[in-house]
Amino acid sequence: MERVVRHFQEELETLKQRLLAMGGLAEERTRVAVQGVVDRDHEAIQAVLTGDEPINDLHIEVDDRCFKLLALHQPMAADLRAIVAAVKINTDLERVGDLAVNVAEAGKRYLQHPPVKPLIDIPRMGDIAQVMLRDALDAFVRRDLALAEAVLQKDDELDALKTQIFRELLTYMLQDPSTIEPALDLLLISRHLERIGDHATNIAEDVIFMVSARDVRHQPLEAHGPGGRG
Amino acid sequence: MERVVRHFQEELETLKQRLLAMGGLAEERTRVAVQGVVDRDHEAIQAVLTGDEPINDLHIEVDDRCFKLLALHQPMAADLRAIVAAVKINTDLERVGDLAVNVAEAGKRYLQHPPVKPLIDIPRMGDIAQVMLRDALDAFVRRDLALAEAVLQKDDELDALKTQIFRELLTYMLQDPSTIEPALDLLLISRHLERIGDHATNIAEDVIFMVSARDVRHQPLEAHGPGGRG
Repeated sequence: MERVVRHFQEELETLKQRLLAMGGLAEERTRVAVQGVVDRDHEAIQAVLTGDEPINDLHIEVDDRCFKLLALHQPMAADLRAIVAAVKINTDLERVGDLAVNVAEAGKRYLQHPPVKPLIDIPRMGDIAQVMLRDALDAFVRRDLALAEAVLQKDDELDALKTQIFRELLTYMLQDPSTIEPALDLLLISRHLERIGDHATNIAEDVIFMVSARDVRHQPLEAHGPGGRG
Repeated sequence: MERVVRHFQEELETLKQRLLAMGGLAEERTRVAVQGVVDRDHEAIQAVLTGDEPINDLHIEVDDRCFKLLALHQPMAADLRAIVAAVKINTDLERVGDLAVNVAEAGKRYLQHPPVKPLIDIPRMGDIAQVMLRDALDAFVRRDLALAEAVLQKDDELDALKTQIFRELLTYMLQDPSTIEPALDLLLISRHLERIGDHATNIAEDVIFMVSARDVRHQPLEAHGPGGRG
């Protein structure tokens, strides 16, 4: 029994590390896509367009790990909640990977036109979205409620930037119709980055639910069970 | 043991019915939001803007049911896979509820301007997204692989309509700058409807994974276990 428990904790640790690796990839691909648009770097954008296989592979691997942990170890309470959170986080990270591709797609179209304006707020949105993603995953691994709550605060910054970008681009479009088409792609990029922030928010909410519910529900479950694992 | 098994199957059935109810609400709210934009019906739009509590309540309830089923019954193989799918589907349906609100928000702004054009393709997108959602959930409840695969096909129709709407609205914007602002809201609405289709696609993919993986993995698990449940 002791060996099974240790094995379970090792597997759970590996699961967390795989989610961190996936988050790192998602973050890096977002960074490269946005930087590619800012630097008008076609190669960088092309790399994002064609390179989502590693994240998709991890998506399948993590799903499989979660299923095996549930099926073979039948975890209870906090461990069960961590694995259910991992299932959800895995879905969010896979979609962040898709959104990085969406940024690159819109970016590729954008580069077919002369620049509408120097890009300042879009890379700022990209930076915030990346930090949110990293903090949300760190909060998951460390069960850090305060960090998860800080992620939720950051989402307001992202929304404010999105609104500001919208107003600014609308002004350009109204003044000069030749900017309409490229400005639409910049608007799309800002929406995609906002959605990456939304996924980070989802992850942070899952962490809060996971940690809080453990606090609330741990007591009655422990009273029935054979004692905690940690 | 027999009573525990019957209880589990009843609970699993209730879980499926709650997901269907949630899907029905999400579908209906999408329909009302789109119809509100088409009919320029401010009241309908307002109803969608303020009425997402029932879906949010179901979201929490379904999550709770999934967690209890996992914790108290420690299901294996096909049942475990169905519950993990339910966790994911629950997330998708909650976001469809949010997207119906997003359609209503863009719709509310749109109604502040004179109509850009008669709306034909947007309600068509709404209809397709609703059918996709309904079929995906039916496929989940009935474990219907063919129906789930049909949902994936429909997503192409939605994408084609989205592209068509984009081109048409771009033409309007280029010809008459006064249409830019309302046309942007129509573009957003078409994107939100596309994303509802994406969520239906996610659900269909979960169903395919759930059903196929049962076929592949059922044998070895059954060899270890005390026999199947159905």
